[in-house]
Amino acid sequence: MIDFTFPPEVEEVRLKVREFMDTRVRPAWEAIDQDNRDEVVKTIVELRKEAHDDWGLWLPHMPPEWGGMGLGPTAMAAVSAEASKVGIGPFVINAQAPDEGNQHTLLHWGTDEQKEKYLKPLCNGTARSCFAMTEPEVAGSDPTLIKTFAYQDGDEWVINGHKWFISGARGAKFAMLVARTEEDPDIPQAANSCFIVDLPSEGWNVVRDVHTMSGGHNHCEILIEDLRVPAENMLGGRGQGHLLGQYRLGPARLAHCMRWIGQAEIALDMMVERAMERYSHGSILAEKQGIQWLISDSAVELYQCKLMVLHAAYQIEHGMDFTAVVSMAKHFVANSLWRIIDRAIQVHGALGYSTDTPLAGMLQQARWARFADGADEIHQMRIAQRTIAAFNDDGTTKKATGNLPL
Amino acid sequence: MIDFTFPPEVEEVRLKVREFMDTRVRPAWEAIDQDNRDEVVKTIVELRKEAHDDWGLWLPHMPPEWGGMGLGPTAMAAVSAEASKVGIGPFVINAQAPDEGNQHTLLHWGTDEQKEKYLKPLCNGTARSCFAMTEPEVAGSDPTLIKTFAYQDGDEWVINGHKWFISGARGAKFAMLVARTEEDPDIPQAANSCFIVDLPSEGWNVVRDVHTMSGGHNHCEILIEDLRVPAENMLGGRGQGHLLGQYRLGPARLAHCMRWIGQAEIALDMMVERAMERYSHGSILAEKQGIQWLISDSAVELYQCKLMVLHAAYQIEHGMDFTAVVSMAKHFVANSLWRIIDRAIQVHGALGYSTDTPLAGMLQQARWARFADGADEIHQMRIAQRTIAAFNDDGTTKKATGNLPL
Amino acid sequence: MIDFTFPPEVEEVRLKVREFMDTRVRPAWEAIDQDNRDEVVKTIVELRKEAHDDWGLWLPHMPPEWGGMGLGPTAMAAVSAEASKVGIGPFVINAQAPDEGNQHTLLHWGTDEQKEKYLKPLCNGTARSCFAMTEPEVAGSDPTLIKTFAYQDGDEWVINGHKWFISGARGAKFAMLVARTEEDPDIPQAANSCFIVDLPSEGWNVVRDVHTMSGGHNHCEILIEDLRVPAENMLGGRGQGHLLGQYRLGPARLAHCMRWIGQAEIALDMMVERAMERYSHGSILAEKQGIQWLISDSAVELYQCKLMVLHAAYQIEHGMDFTAVVSMAKHFVANSLWRIIDRAIQVHGALGYSTDTPLAGMLQQARWARFADGADEIHQMRIAQRTIAAFNDDGTTKKATGNLPL
Amino acid sequence: MIDFTFPPEVEEVRLKVREFMDTRVRPAWEAIDQDNRDEVVKTIVELRKEAHDDWGLWLPHMPPEWGGMGLGPTAMAAVSAEASKVGIGPFVINAQAPDEGNQHTLLHWGTDEQKEKYLKPLCNGTARSCFAMTEPEVAGSDPTLIKTFAYQDGDEWVINGHKWFISGARGAKFAMLVARTEEDPDIPQAANSCFIVDLPSEGWNVVRDVHTMSGGHNHCEILIEDLRVPAENMLGGRGQGHLLGQYRLGPARLAHCMRWIGQAEIALDMMVERAMERYSHGSILAEKQGIQWLISDSAVELYQCKLMVLHAAYQIEHGMDFTAVVSMAKHFVANSLWRIIDRAIQVHGALGYSTDTPLAGMLQQARWARFADGADEIHQMRIAQRTIAAFNDDGTTKKATGNLPL
Repeated sequence: MIDFTFPPEVEEVRLKVREFMDTRVRPAWEAIDQDNRDEVVKTIVELRKEAHDDWGLWLPHMPPEWGGMGLGPTAMAAVSAEASKVGIGPFVINAQAPDEGNQHTLLHWGTDEQKEKYLKPLCNGTARSCFAMTEPEVAGSDPTLIKTFAYQDGDEWVINGHKWFISGARGAKFAMLVARTEEDPDIPQAANSCFIVDLPSEGWNVVRDVHTMSGGHNHCEILIEDLRVPAENMLGGRGQGHLLGQYRLGPARLAHCMRWIGQAEIALDMMVERAMERYSHGSILAEKQGIQWLISDSAVELYQCKLMVLHAAYQIEHGMDFTAVVSMAKHFVANSLWRIIDRAIQVHGALGYSTDTPLAGMLQQARWARFADGADEIHQMRIAQRTIAAFNDDGTTKKATGNLPL
Repeated sequence: MIDFTFPPEVEEVRLKVREFMDTRVRPAWEAIDQDNRDEVVKTIVELRKEAHDDWGLWLPHMPPEWGGMGLGPTAMAAVSAEASKVGIGPFVINAQAPDEGNQHTLLHWGTDEQKEKYLKPLCNGTARSCFAMTEPEVAGSDPTLIKTFAYQDGDEWVINGHKWFISGARGAKFAMLVARTEEDPDIPQAANSCFIVDLPSEGWNVVRDVHTMSGGHNHCEILIEDLRVPAENMLGGRGQGHLLGQYRLGPARLAHCMRWIGQAEIALDMMVERAMERYSHGSILAEKQGIQWLISDSAVELYQCKLMVLHAAYQIEHGMDFTAVVSMAKHFVANSLWRIIDRAIQVHGALGYSTDTPLAGMLQQARWARFADGADEIHQMRIAQRTIAAFNDDGTTKKATGNLPL
Repeated sequence: MIDFTFPPEVEEVRLKVREFMDTRVRPAWEAIDQDNRDEVVKTIVELRKEAHDDWGLWLPHMPPEWGGMGLGPTAMAAVSAEASKVGIGPFVINAQAPDEGNQHTLLHWGTDEQKEKYLKPLCNGTARSCFAMTEPEVAGSDPTLIKTFAYQDGDEWVINGHKWFISGARGAKFAMLVARTEEDPDIPQAANSCFIVDLPSEGWNVVRDVHTMSGGHNHCEILIEDLRVPAENMLGGRGQGHLLGQYRLGPARLAHCMRWIGQAEIALDMMVERAMERYSHGSILAEKQGIQWLISDSAVELYQCKLMVLHAAYQIEHGMDFTAVVSMAKHFVANSLWRIIDRAIQVHGALGYSTDTPLAGMLQQARWARFADGADEIHQMRIAQRTIAAFNDDGTTKKATGNLPL
Repeated sequence: MIDFTFPPEVEEVRLKVREFMDTRVRPAWEAIDQDNRDEVVKTIVELRKEAHDDWGLWLPHMPPEWGGMGLGPTAMAAVSAEASKVGIGPFVINAQAPDEGNQHTLLHWGTDEQKEKYLKPLCNGTARSCFAMTEPEVAGSDPTLIKTFAYQDGDEWVINGHKWFISGARGAKFAMLVARTEEDPDIPQAANSCFIVDLPSEGWNVVRDVHTMSGGHNHCEILIEDLRVPAENMLGGRGQGHLLGQYRLGPARLAHCMRWIGQAEIALDMMVERAMERYSHGSILAEKQGIQWLISDSAVELYQCKLMVLHAAYQIEHGMDFTAVVSMAKHFVANSLWRIIDRAIQVHGALGYSTDTPLAGMLQQARWARFADGADEIHQMRIAQRTIAAFNDDGTTKKATGNLPL
């Protein structure tokens, strides 16, 4: 039975998150000098404690036995979108990338020992982690090309390779590292395995922060030289690195989308606010047809983003095949985010180009969304391939456009 | 509780419609010479009888007491999309524009006498109707400009004016005619009233079929000269013409969208089929990245169309304010339809430009969708205005992007 | 020395063409019933005679010794754009496709005997011709796939194959027919040869007019069965069919662009005129920002079309390599034409969809431009390849962006 | 006579600029630490001396009597595009914004005394200047809104107001300041006058560098409080501020375009280079159809940019009305620059997002181009208005699409 509502308890959580962000997190964040690292750390530590102790907003996506709130993907969509209206919001409630994805992955693939040792501190908020897959020499969109190589030496694996854009690597207590272990797999996708690497470790060398359009936010370049990892630190089985990556990436991509929706909504709100204040050539901007088109296009796209994310979350929640819808959501939301912020900047004029509003920084971050967890081009290829496969299977593409009852 | 499924009985109806279209309507339609009017009429009459008598597929949108199937808007979305995969499909099950909208309007606004006299034959399928609002001299998107004027003369109204693009006027048993009755209304929107006009009538002169890009499909130009309508034939109250039009147009616009989705799905299916068959410059088209982009963009857009239509239908079904979401759906589906067919044609090359496939004709019809029941520009303006109003009300545009729990 | 002007004598010719079109051709054409074939033929015959005898506007692109005006490509750009503001304009002055291209081809590749026999009546206006290359079974964009096959049998070639979209085939006195003659050419592009076929001929069977989105305008499907052509009717040498096609297509594509510019200018003129007359929601359309964007985008695109065509014509005129710039012009002008007409229609509302203005028909014809003489996709591929080649040659793409001194 | 070539001496200058940039400026610039201000200043000073003394590349746009090379606008297009392939290039040859525009303005509007005092040191390279028009409170696109106000007090003007985004204000020896002087002008455009302000001055308070998406590049916010300027420092007459601004902005906008073309060409070169190196999913990127579309679209747009800039420069050079073509060039080149860099980044993947290539920084700077010297929206409005005016004057829009002989 078609339904677009949440149960009251989910709506309650969403409103609580909103209140926490509006009354505590945003004011605290805006009150400090964000270039002062000590202040930033202190503020975040306090806010995290408050989130956990006073508001009960902690690990929304994890089951209660791990200290979480046990929300499913649809509820998470609402919670994440709210939390991410403040940049540090998701981190404050311990639901940020890449930890959130790593938590899911460990929960699903980890042995009891691995969970105890790695998942627990991640959930407690006493550790951070990173996920090391991307390599500078090969296209990240094609994991069959991964060159980092691990060979077995007694009870250990010895790993050599080169990674970059490893977000959160500095300060992480451990990494999940994807490396090629199989010389000649049955299928090209079964060449890689995943290892948990304690950090710091000899042989794991952080070369530098890769600086980006959006500054240097701890996206590290790592040189891996004869790094030794005990055999029991393999996560999942041999050759399951790709499978695990796919399992991890689906929900992780959608979690990105949820956060991007929060950002896009802020941009649209600012666009409208500015359009009502600014006067030029005989009227306020909001009364001009062209500016209305910018607003209208943005509203329609944001609406579509929300519908897509809700539907994809629903598919995950009900154990349905979600790869197609997550690809479509990831590709579309990332690009909508970019366009909506860009339009908001244009409506702000020179002010939008300045850093006096958050829009400039948001645009610089949003550019990353079109690469993160699969560049546009890889998702477009996959969407097309699934559409073609659907037609081949059923004589119609229907299955590939959401497999909706329509 | 978020849910994207139908109850089994709805899915059953949808599959029945699909089967009827695939096994009966399409074969019968393709077997005849569609330029031979006698054959066309005979075929349609037989198919309508069969739909009603043998398949029980008749008036899906009307309540059982009027001989219908009592489906709500979400179920109708599925049924209409299926039926419209054959051009005459909606007409065969008596769920076509403009009769479908007129049936809704009479059901809601008509007096018992009006229902008996006009709604009944429409439901029985023994009469057709038309809706006469658009005028050549003024912008159809702005009903405050309507010039057709009615004045009271005893028990009658006398009407003079000029209408065009009145679909289905030839052969209609009655028209719903919108005319200005109030000289000085409290608000500009309260100037018009709606009249039921028996056809033919003295003073209702069909000047011609307006020929269009898509041929002459009974979109008539009407000269109204001293047309006399009895007072009891006013539908709704004085000055309620705009209200009634809005009430009618919301669901009617969405019904268009449902039918357009069926058309868009056919175009996407054809695009994929052709891409797999056609070879050029070293590979089949389906393996080329650019063609995959055309397929991928189309799949994403069709997916979005379906989500939007489902959600808008849900809003109507639950008595929620649907104007914003219907505007967004109307605008987006109409333009997606245009783009998807256009891409399908491009993938077909010269064949797509020929009338050897239905695509050329579909494109010519689809151009109309960007004007029908509100041109793009009017919907874009309304979407923007609602987004601005939402921000003014709540300090956020959230309400205007579907008012979703996200 | 950068210069964007014509010598006075060229400008004079352009104005003369404009005057002829405005005072004679358009009035005559609009005065008759264009569905009446006899009237149409009679009018055109008279106008052609008048063009030749009274106005001296005949074969502008051919040298005086062939009865032409000897204009080079840049001057032709102006003349063609003017002439094509009336649909039949180019035909009236004997500068229409495909004859124009065939005249160029015969002039360049024909033997004296071939010129005498085929070029002369074409120039006199006593014969029409066609060019038969496209085949339904294979992608027209890839001439290495051509299946029509010719084998030598004594003094004759015997040809079998299947062609379609052969414009002007009915009524043509001869065809230029491209067929594969070489089984195993050194390069794939050297497999085809070109033959002049007298029409009618046994073995050249016109199956039908291929009907299109724009009606049935003598784009024929031809079945070629044991068609015998004398050896002396080969045009150019064995295996030179591709070369000849390329030689022909460059200027022919640009000639299309010139005519499309005329059409686009008419559409923009109509868009502006309508925007100034139509009132809606508080102002005339021309005062609304969004409508201004449609006008502005169209003006910029048309300006770019003109610059590109002028520059490409200049390259041809001066014997420079023109393939790159002609590809860019063809691709861009065809798509601009489509967009400009589409916007003009939107600004006209329902009127634009009707056939009461020429816009609807113009859009239907314009769809063909995106396939004609190389679909968009083939030109985009070629443009990219040339850009890559330029970089490989010079370390910069400069040569591929017009090879301008900038 | 249509001609797209330069005289040999201009081509020679262009090649000399290229050589200077390739062999001297780029190597020197890349060899230093660009965050070290001392090194930067030292390097630039040396390069400027070398440009002037050894290469004779100095003030290309100024007449010889002012120490310049006397190049006209078309030649400048080539020189500027070349010079700007290195970020500091235009500054090294003393042809950078805002000094270049200020030099033109002083040359045209200045009294002999003003030229001696202000133009001379600007030409010698011993002074820098700024242009102060934009205000934070009002739309920069509408100069009738300017609030900075000057009143006469004896031999002085006293000025109060608020400016921002005043590029190059720190370190400038003087500013050109636009302020309202007329309470009740005949036309709204005649309210402002322009003053030359010696810097530093009491009452001219630099509040801060406005930080932007692209860092803090000396775009200053200025508070003007009782600033006193001697009467002889008015530039042009009373109420001529707008006129002077328009006169200045036309060529200044085009000079921006020339520099942007240089940047766009670099981006396209990098896009192609990367596409040939990077392998993914079975081929190098350059062989994939979609990537080819990105290259092709960029090549076509860059080609159009070059044609438009050449043509607009030609119009200026020959004293023709250039406002329409400069508006079109400014709007289109700014947006092409943005798109071409954005595509180049996408083709580079994560590398493009990093600052390891110059692309990220180029995109951040390019966003400014869509506001600088007239936001997109103001140019679109002007282009539309001129198109409408052309139609009103001539019955055709021809004059507004470049007024070309086509």
